[in-house]
Amino acid sequence: MASLESALAALMEEKKYASARDLLITMNGADIAAVFTELPDETLPLLFRLLPKELAAEVFVEMEPEEQELLIRGFSDNELKEVVDELYADDAADLVEEMPANVVKRILKTADPDLRKTINELLKYPEDSAGSIMTTEMVTLRPLMTVGEAIKRIRRTGIDKETVYNCYITDDARHLIGTVSIRSLILAEDDELVRNIMEENVISVNTLEDQETTAEMMAKYDFTALPVVDKERRLVGIVTVDDAIDVIKEEATEDIERMAAILPSDKPYLRTGVFSIWSNRIPWLLLLMVSATFTSMILSSFENALAAQSALLLFIPMLMDTGGNSGSQASVTIIRSLSLGDVEPADIGSVIWKEMRVALLCGLSLGLVCFGKVMLIDRLLMHNPEVTVPVALVVCLTMAATILCAKLVGCTLPIIAKLVRLDPAVCASPFITTIVDALSLLIYFAIASSLLRLV
Amino acid sequence: MASLESALAALMEEKKYASARDLLITMNGADIAAVFTELPDETLPLLFRLLPKELAAEVFVEMEPEEQELLIRGFSDNELKEVVDELYADDAADLVEEMPANVVKRILKTADPDLRKTINELLKYPEDSAGSIMTTEMVTLRPLMTVGEAIKRIRRTGIDKETVYNCYITDDARHLIGTVSIRSLILAEDDELVRNIMEENVISVNTLEDQETTAEMMAKYDFTALPVVDKERRLVGIVTVDDAIDVIKEEATEDIERMAAILPSDKPYLRTGVFSIWSNRIPWLLLLMVSATFTSMILSSFENALAAQSALLLFIPMLMDTGGNSGSQASVTIIRSLSLGDVEPADIGSVIWKEMRVALLCGLSLGLVCFGKVMLIDRLLMHNPEVTVPVALVVCLTMAATILCAKLVGCTLPIIAKLVRLDPAVCASPFITTIVDALSLLIYFAIASSLLRLV
Repeated sequence: MASLESALAALMEEKKYASARDLLITMNGADIAAVFTELPDETLPLLFRLLPKELAAEVFVEMEPEEQELLIRGFSDNELKEVVDELYADDAADLVEEMPANVVKRILKTADPDLRKTINELLKYPEDSAGSIMTTEMVTLRPLMTVGEAIKRIRRTGIDKETVYNCYITDDARHLIGTVSIRSLILAEDDELVRNIMEENVISVNTLEDQETTAEMMAKYDFTALPVVDKERRLVGIVTVDDAIDVIKEEATEDIERMAAILPSDKPYLRTGVFSIWSNRIPWLLLLMVSATFTSMILSSFENALAAQSALLLFIPMLMDTGGNSGSQASVTIIRSLSLGDVEPADIGSVIWKEMRVALLCGLSLGLVCFGKVMLIDRLLMHNPEVTVPVALVVCLTMAATILCAKLVGCTLPIIAKLVRLDPAVCASPFITTIVDALSLLIYFAIASSLLRLV
Repeated sequence: MASLESALAALMEEKKYASARDLLITMNGADIAAVFTELPDETLPLLFRLLPKELAAEVFVEMEPEEQELLIRGFSDNELKEVVDELYADDAADLVEEMPANVVKRILKTADPDLRKTINELLKYPEDSAGSIMTTEMVTLRPLMTVGEAIKRIRRTGIDKETVYNCYITDDARHLIGTVSIRSLILAEDDELVRNIMEENVISVNTLEDQETTAEMMAKYDFTALPVVDKERRLVGIVTVDDAIDVIKEEATEDIERMAAILPSDKPYLRTGVFSIWSNRIPWLLLLMVSATFTSMILSSFENALAAQSALLLFIPMLMDTGGNSGSQASVTIIRSLSLGDVEPADIGSVIWKEMRVALLCGLSLGLVCFGKVMLIDRLLMHNPEVTVPVALVVCLTMAATILCAKLVGCTLPIIAKLVRLDPAVCASPFITTIVDALSLLIYFAIASSLLRLV
């Protein structure tokens, strides 16, 4: 990529615009946008004007909002109109959502009235709904058309549609009654009726359906487009597979961020300001810090015990961390399974039963290794005479018990969160760690008190 | 769903097979497979035989390997042949990979010779390569065909192809020289040459390209199919968007599992055995437990200091956890950005500069709140006279310094891992936590020694 940018920059410098254009048109919109990002801002408007109209729109859609705004501010009204009218309605609506008010006004003013109406309609749907990611451009057919007429209609009107691979059949009241793929149309005889080759069991979503559910449906059924209908089952748009992929990636990123105690952001890292990164990270850090008061309280009430058996202190971090790690393994597994639909809240019984057995295996194996490690490394290698067999026994029993508790807490909390309609992802590592810290200390001191006869 | 299953079970019980079949054919393959999972195993073969041939193949592909095996074992050779011959080559190859050896032998014996050859070829590609997820069924055209001839060819041969939305143009030596969408074909005049409407700048991948890179390319370019070529740029297959979505979801799950110190598994949770869950979780737990020896060593060398100022002990878990959480926020953000391509290893400078500023903001704000919390909650509310102003000062200074270190370690480690070709995801929370635990204790005792004049 590096050489392409320098080549383009050099061509522009030497005012060899025709060659720059020839170079650009060999490239794909997404690649051109990536190259543009690397070039100095002042060359963008000139370069952009070199692109053929359709390619220009493709590049524009792939650019970052800051660059889009910069370009729009440099456009004449005519140039703006040319770009906006080439955009698909859902991309135009996304653009309007990203731009500041005065830019939005110019966009809506210059847009074709039909497009303006569609943009306004799309903006009405709630964020993260199927309506907000759908496009209203699709091919609709009528049941009594012949295949030949249908293909003629696609030829006449299909040129601007984002996808013509699936056509939708509606009745007089615009109710969705069937679907037919271009493939079936091409493979059918010209005089066959659309009604006879259409698939009548159409799977569709409501405009208000969550975008994640919508994308998951498309993944499940291997669809390249999914029709969106209103309350009366009238066809209002389609969600295309490229937007579904974006949703799947976004939602995975959001889950990952929530699991790491970060509020989700929708901008790429390098383009997010320091202050907004801070404000996404600080709430959970504060909450978790304050809740660590419980561990202080527990430690403080066992201060005398620790003074009497100071070797116990050495293993607190190991016990807390191993507990935290065991718990987050369980919670993260369940969170991901919930979001993939592999586990439902109704499975809570089998989840607990499974985690209990895994926890016993982990507890046994780690407890044994832990006993060996404490006796070998901490006692023999470190020459610490305070690390006695009873101490090692306390540590490894605590280890096993903590793992059991941690796994059980870790697997149940996300399911409970889901049941009370919270996002299960917030019950991941940091949250579990805080709970397990307190639990492991309580277990530690309980076992120590009964085995070591502390003061 | 619940009612569908009981309805089907009831129909089967009463031997109303025709009605059961009528019910089934209103449904989609993926839905039928989901319903079958819930039904008792012994009804499956009978139900399956009710399905029309093509739908049966669709359902079969969506079933879990255990159920597929069960069905195959019950099939006569003829029945097996009917199902296998309806499968797309890539699905058939997946099936062969999942089945035990004796079942594989039967499948390959009954498969059509052409299909058998293709399956064997597909199995030769390395796991997780583009070759392993591609299908070899696609429509190829020649440059000198007219649009009319092309459409005729699609009609004649396209019926078995997994996707006919994109056609690929090859020269005499099977080199890929262009691509054309069905959309362009339909919208063009019948006597136009394919050569004149084809896109010549074809984006393709090599058979050995990583499947994640392949899927990310399709997401980036909004493709529904991506051609796969061999070393000599001869067309050997295509990857379709439904398989790309599966790869994107799988890779996100793998990243999430690695971040939680779990070895990735490719089975849904409820279908994974207790022993294999254990074996995926125990290696990291063991490694992290043993590496906690460092924190024991540090604690042990500061035992006297802790005895002199026992209040210091109370804040160890809080400092370690906050450090761990801060570090994993940074590492998880960078890991995800690396895998989405938002951050490249070359950006390490700007990443460190950004994280340093975020860390200063987080350190300042948390340090201040921490000072207040310690003085108010731990000193006043808990009536602990040992918690003095100097102690609170030591705690909040340590907090700020730990956050700075944790964020820097958290943001650099994943990038370094990527540079030395390790998976950055292993540098997430648990790994960072172990390092930050040791760091935070060292900082704590260094600051305490200089401010509190410990023994």
